[in-house]
Amino acid sequence: MAPPKAPDSTRRSDRSRRAIYDAALALVGETGYARTTIEGIAARAGVGKQTIYRWWPSKAAVLMEAFLDLAARQSAEAAEAAGGEAGGTKAAAAGAMDAAGTGIPDTGDLAADLKLVLRATVDELNDPAAAAPTRALTAEGIVDPALGAQFVEKLLDPQIQLYVTRLRAAQDAGEVRADIDPRTALELLIAPLTHRWLLRTLPLTHAYADEIVDYTLRGLSPRA
Amino acid sequence: MAPPKAPDSTRRSDRSRRAIYDAALALVGETGYARTTIEGIAARAGVGKQTIYRWWPSKAAVLMEAFLDLAARQSAEAAEAAGGEAGGTKAAAAGAMDAAGTGIPDTGDLAADLKLVLRATVDELNDPAAAAPTRALTAEGIVDPALGAQFVEKLLDPQIQLYVTRLRAAQDAGEVRADIDPRTALELLIAPLTHRWLLRTLPLTHAYADEIVDYTLRGLSPRA
Repeated sequence: MAPPKAPDSTRRSDRSRRAIYDAALALVGETGYARTTIEGIAARAGVGKQTIYRWWPSKAAVLMEAFLDLAARQSAEAAEAAGGEAGGTKAAAAGAMDAAGTGIPDTGDLAADLKLVLRATVDELNDPAAAAPTRALTAEGIVDPALGAQFVEKLLDPQIQLYVTRLRAAQDAGEVRADIDPRTALELLIAPLTHRWLLRTLPLTHAYADEIVDYTLRGLSPRA
Repeated sequence: MAPPKAPDSTRRSDRSRRAIYDAALALVGETGYARTTIEGIAARAGVGKQTIYRWWPSKAAVLMEAFLDLAARQSAEAAEAAGGEAGGTKAAAAGAMDAAGTGIPDTGDLAADLKLVLRATVDELNDPAAAAPTRALTAEGIVDPALGAQFVEKLLDPQIQLYVTRLRAAQDAGEVRADIDPRTALELLIAPLTHRWLLRTLPLTHAYADEIVDYTLRGLSPRA
């Protein structure tokens, strides 16, 4: 007897969606944003291009969604690697770079919490599978303001908000000065990693992430 | 009587070189790196393409040189705008983003010196004439490691060295803690500006430059 139709069709849909995401990320990583086309994605995914047009209005839209899906999967993997038994805290730390926004841990030790999150960010940026598509999409966003705005709104701003929330909690706890603007302060934490990764000035390591946290929290000037 | 030949030919060379730089920057800003060609630059500059091939080995080489020339002119303009009578200090501050490397001023007040330089950087990044070619070249460097390495070596590293030198002097003067690595610390100063400018997260202003300097020097944690 044939299985009921609906679940099978859902499975087929999920398979197609996954194939389209994978094809989109592979193509943009290999040939760049400009040369990636809906036709190319469809051919590589083994679907008709009408399937893509039915689900997404544009190339930018399918790429952005493929990218958000990648970020979510990276976070889930990082959370798993951090060890299921540790549960909430480590999973949440890994999730800091997840657009879904599971939050930055708050153990009461701001430096430790930030180091955990920035080390996870280093690992994600150094993941070769994600590097090429992330670079291609970031580069395109730099020269295409509309795509860049989507990138910021859908991917970056939700992450930024997690840092604002954690720094506000640290202010409430007396760990961060009250006269600091968290929205500005967080850029001292995330911008150096992005800068080093995008421009490849020097290797991006856990030790570097730790130094950035220490320097940001304690400052460069000697304590009076 | 006709003027002597050599000076006239030098003037013609200088004019051609200037026209080629202008054409290269305009084209890369308008159409992006990939679609900019030696032929296109030659046509727009009104020179034969053999003239370009005689002086530069590749499209990347002519663009990089045009870009370094632009940065040098921006610095000279900023120095002039800062007022000739102020002389050395302000000119040097503006020159901090100049690959020629005239140095960051050392008035003995690190915060003031860094604010002067980072405000000049904000002005340069907000200059509309430079924005499009700078974005195009940066974006290409992000996806093309060979071009990116040239960008870092020829443009970014000389600037980075100026910050290292100034921070070392501040360490000698007791203005910066001895256990700080200047090469890491400077990234807290320059990366946030680059991040905000490249990704267009929020407006890039003098007030922001000042905040970055204050936060970096004093840190976020309350003083004990």
